[in-house]
Amino acid sequence: MSLHPVQRQGVLLVLSSPSGAGKTTLARALLANDAGIALSISMTTRTRRPGEVDGKDYFFLTNDEFARRRDAGDLLEWAEVHGNFYGTPKGAIDAHVAAGRDVLFDIDVQGAEQMRQRASAPVASVFILPPSAAILKERLERRAQDSAEIVARRLANAGAEIARWHEYDYVIVNVELAESIATLTAILAAERSRRARQVGLKDFVGSLKI
Amino acid sequence: MSLHPVQRQGVLLVLSSPSGAGKTTLARALLANDAGIALSISMTTRTRRPGEVDGKDYFFLTNDEFARRRDAGDLLEWAEVHGNFYGTPKGAIDAHVAAGRDVLFDIDVQGAEQMRQRASAPVASVFILPPSAAILKERLERRAQDSAEIVARRLANAGAEIARWHEYDYVIVNVELAESIATLTAILAAERSRRARQVGLKDFVGSLKI
Repeated sequence: MSLHPVQRQGVLLVLSSPSGAGKTTLARALLANDAGIALSISMTTRTRRPGEVDGKDYFFLTNDEFARRRDAGDLLEWAEVHGNFYGTPKGAIDAHVAAGRDVLFDIDVQGAEQMRQRASAPVASVFILPPSAAILKERLERRAQDSAEIVARRLANAGAEIARWHEYDYVIVNVELAESIATLTAILAAERSRRARQVGLKDFVGSLKI
Repeated sequence: MSLHPVQRQGVLLVLSSPSGAGKTTLARALLANDAGIALSISMTTRTRRPGEVDGKDYFFLTNDEFARRRDAGDLLEWAEVHGNFYGTPKGAIDAHVAAGRDVLFDIDVQGAEQMRQRASAPVASVFILPPSAAILKERLERRAQDSAEIVARRLANAGAEIARWHEYDYVIVNVELAESIATLTAILAAERSRRARQVGLKDFVGSLKI
């Protein structure tokens, strides 16, 4: 990478899926495989779960703090999910893009829609689907830490989220985890070489005059 | 791949570059690495070079035969390059796309433009650039089998071809061959997972209703 003579923008890689499709596992694997991309840390107003660290898993904010930043136009995207607010600080992301640093977003369909509208650079979006309805249901019910009420709400939401698969550039049906990780890694590599992101190409081509 | 439950169209992967940028080496490496893609065999009216095999390297046609097929609308793209005609038969390519077979096209900027207009499915196009003007010139002059006249014509054409880099989806500056091959392989893998090519997704999503 360091040899590459053309300056480029960072890739904004958006990953969405219904709960239980394996998105978080895929996101972690991509981050472990590829040192060039970092996870965007969201702000949220939801209660911190056991083991979660403020500033690492999320920035945990009060409802008032969140509303203040949102109203100041400081959020690239925000959404209310299951009664809680989630959002992404815009200034930090713009700086990453300009410096050619890639950022991974683990966000829902509402957040992805806003990202496409508000981001200062093209977004590459990937939707993860479960291999079958039975497996999706099984995965959602297996999370012991969640209450029956939350599981039921997730099941109800899953259908509505899946219905928006067609808004995404790429779709991965997560049948075999290793294959899905390879595909996601390839998508990132390909998006890095998109003409539109290589902002230094015009100058470079000018230098090729024989 | 065989586990994947969603039917998809074949990828039409178009590779263009000025002569001497390393395109043919890259194309061969991709074909060797990835058993899922086959090279489109062009028809041409140019003289067969030593070692070239009819039906493998090209289909060698007379000018009359070429004109007849072109006028019958049987060509996906055609172009006159250095005084010879080159073209791609449309019916065979349409059949590959429908069957989910990926096809690689090693064609020039004129051919790529026609492919985008006439192909029955989305085209993914990649432009290969040399790392510097000096290296491009050196590579063009090194081909001993070509006459000085042909080298001079190639040098003149290279500038005009490079000027159309911005018509392509992806641009690879071919600095390190291994890195360029990895990028090209990733582009193919990513394009296979594009939503627009997975024509079976609508039915598959319908099957996910919980």
